[in-house]
Amino acid sequence: MNAAILTIGEEILIGQIVDTNSAWIATELNNIGVSVRRIVSISDSYEEIKNTISKLFNEFDIVLITGGLGPTNDDVTKHALCELFNAELIVHKPTLDHIAGIFARRGLLLTELNAKQAEVPNNCKVLFNPNGTAPAMLFENGKSIMVSMPGVPYEMKAIMKLHVIPEIKGKNGTRVVYHKNIQTFGLPESFLAEKISEWERNLPENTSLAYLPSPNSIRLRLSTIGSDTSLIKNNTQLQIEKLKSIIPNNIFGFDDDTMARTVARLLLEKNAKLAVAESCTGGTIAQLLTENSGSSEYFVGGIVAYSNELKVEQLRVSNNDIEKFGAVSQQVVEAMAANARDIFKTHYAIATSGIAGPTGATKEKPVGTVWIAVATPQNVVSELHTFGGDRERNILRSAVAALNMLRLILLEEKMAEKT
Amino acid sequence: MNAAILTIGEEILIGQIVDTNSAWIATELNNIGVSVRRIVSISDSYEEIKNTISKLFNEFDIVLITGGLGPTNDDVTKHALCELFNAELIVHKPTLDHIAGIFARRGLLLTELNAKQAEVPNNCKVLFNPNGTAPAMLFENGKSIMVSMPGVPYEMKAIMKLHVIPEIKGKNGTRVVYHKNIQTFGLPESFLAEKISEWERNLPENTSLAYLPSPNSIRLRLSTIGSDTSLIKNNTQLQIEKLKSIIPNNIFGFDDDTMARTVARLLLEKNAKLAVAESCTGGTIAQLLTENSGSSEYFVGGIVAYSNELKVEQLRVSNNDIEKFGAVSQQVVEAMAANARDIFKTHYAIATSGIAGPTGATKEKPVGTVWIAVATPQNVVSELHTFGGDRERNILRSAVAALNMLRLILLEEKMAEKT
Repeated sequence: MNAAILTIGEEILIGQIVDTNSAWIATELNNIGVSVRRIVSISDSYEEIKNTISKLFNEFDIVLITGGLGPTNDDVTKHALCELFNAELIVHKPTLDHIAGIFARRGLLLTELNAKQAEVPNNCKVLFNPNGTAPAMLFENGKSIMVSMPGVPYEMKAIMKLHVIPEIKGKNGTRVVYHKNIQTFGLPESFLAEKISEWERNLPENTSLAYLPSPNSIRLRLSTIGSDTSLIKNNTQLQIEKLKSIIPNNIFGFDDDTMARTVARLLLEKNAKLAVAESCTGGTIAQLLTENSGSSEYFVGGIVAYSNELKVEQLRVSNNDIEKFGAVSQQVVEAMAANARDIFKTHYAIATSGIAGPTGATKEKPVGTVWIAVATPQNVVSELHTFGGDRERNILRSAVAALNMLRLILLEEKMAEKT
Repeated sequence: MNAAILTIGEEILIGQIVDTNSAWIATELNNIGVSVRRIVSISDSYEEIKNTISKLFNEFDIVLITGGLGPTNDDVTKHALCELFNAELIVHKPTLDHIAGIFARRGLLLTELNAKQAEVPNNCKVLFNPNGTAPAMLFENGKSIMVSMPGVPYEMKAIMKLHVIPEIKGKNGTRVVYHKNIQTFGLPESFLAEKISEWERNLPENTSLAYLPSPNSIRLRLSTIGSDTSLIKNNTQLQIEKLKSIIPNNIFGFDDDTMARTVARLLLEKNAKLAVAESCTGGTIAQLLTENSGSSEYFVGGIVAYSNELKVEQLRVSNNDIEKFGAVSQQVVEAMAANARDIFKTHYAIATSGIAGPTGATKEKPVGTVWIAVATPQNVVSELHTFGGDRERNILRSAVAALNMLRLILLEEKMAEKT
């Protein structure tokens, strides 16, 4: 089956936002063996919407549309759909109840504009939107299906997962593309490529490899095409086992794993608690940990010690050390970690102190210089990193590197316990 | 003049990369008054390329193409262009010398594949590529112009700046599109729309309004077309002043302003320091503040008090209050804010305590229930919010709402000082 993706709205055409929705949808469709052949962005113009949808619906098996469904006046998609499919707008009672419920819970009055979002063409299948007021609408003509969804990413994604993917899967038969993501950290892309080049050359013919780098990880994606899912899965697992023996310390997870979730698993396994003492990462480690539900089971919290006063008064770092070695130093970061562990009464603590930039650099300590320390029940270890990117990247990389340091320590302890 | 952007290549269609080229090109064109009406991504297929280019060239004044010019075999754009424009490929001597020079400097042998990149259709204008081997090609038919460029962003951007933008400017005369973004918070989209509907109706004819919602803000974008930049800017400012009088408290900034940067400005103005005591936001407020360079001038840090023990031991919240009212309560959040201000010796402190979800809800306190408190030098105030989205959204909205609460207090104090 082939597919087209259509994005409606001025934001993309004027370059104000980058079209991440289409990339996400393309990935999801690819995962279920549907091949995206065209991606189009157009404006909110009625004629443009009508003509483009009409052409795409004729040409493709699947047409997925995002955007153009908001309550305000610049959204005309629903009217264009009515003309195209000879439909009339009617009120969809379950959607109206859903919208009324959302407003009632927030203690807000339901406006006419919002009630209008419950209007849908009378010949579409209405797809419930768990994360917002505008529902999605599915049209079918025997040959092709078309779905119009809101453009807000977290609404669109929920509708895709709940309704659209299952619907397409039901129609697409037995060709399978199986993707497996391997999350790595600690090796730059070119080093990683060199280290695993032989493994890559020896991959089976129906398997391809892609590198997907981000500040959080370099993700390796193995994609295998075939018809027997369990066979493909077994073969993929075999390749992963080989890869593990080549870069055992660099693989921290698979698929949707994040460094924080991997650390969480290891902490939960030994029922251990963690605290943080963040300077240059300014709360980012805590944020990465707490974005996962259930984080209170292993994370107690900690200090964002952005000023030196806080480091001294709250974390009991020696003022002398700060004056002698500077706040960005091994002595200070190790004291931060050890004292955070003791003050917050946890088993482990992570501390960071560095120069995120663009200001604050010295000759000896350029932008991107970051000290990271991990306190364990027994001792404190520290590492010096030199990232040297922009501020945002330095902060995120420092936070992930700190979690990775803890991960490797927890893994080592686990191995030691076993032997 | 109107324009279309065409991207050729498999990477975008399988979702492996996000199409940032098109957003960049759209911004550049917009800045010189060219309106992008369509953005299309297609694969490397010969027929697809030929048909799509042919249609776009008929329909638009300007067609800018990226990708499909690499040295490997899956790039067939040049052959499609030859068929479309009745041309033959010839060797472009200056380009061949340029390529040979690049290879010589790297000490590499010039391969036949790379030499082929110097071949161009014999009726195009060749645009020099300072950052790579493949040149860009410009075609013209009196009515429309079309440029085919390599897809590597830093090659494409150099060609755009060196050749394409000046070429288009030469043809487009003096038409200008001016965009101004107004950042709002605190009114849901439909309420905002209703409140400003009369203002919107009375906007000048050459000005249009778009709503761009996100968890951080609802951004209003005013776009005005004209020929006299300073006149347009003045008129836009006039509209903004009118809008300010309608929703004075909801506008927190313009263009790239974020809530954290606005709060930063207000704190810096009065040379005041801020601390945080975060429970449900788990470090996100600190993260939003510290992602801005120079944040140490007004932000000292604070506590991520995820566990109740930390709230009691570090923030001196009364254990009785936690037992009696719960951690998510007005009493606890106010104590957190007041004590954080005193412990960290700042002028202001923000505290949050809530149920981010999906676990932790009770009958009285559903997911999304969040208490926010702000301590000022004089007193402590608090607010109850009920967000009720998913975890990620609840955390981010709570963090931004907390900063917004502080912003409004700082603004009020500023007004009081003036009078």
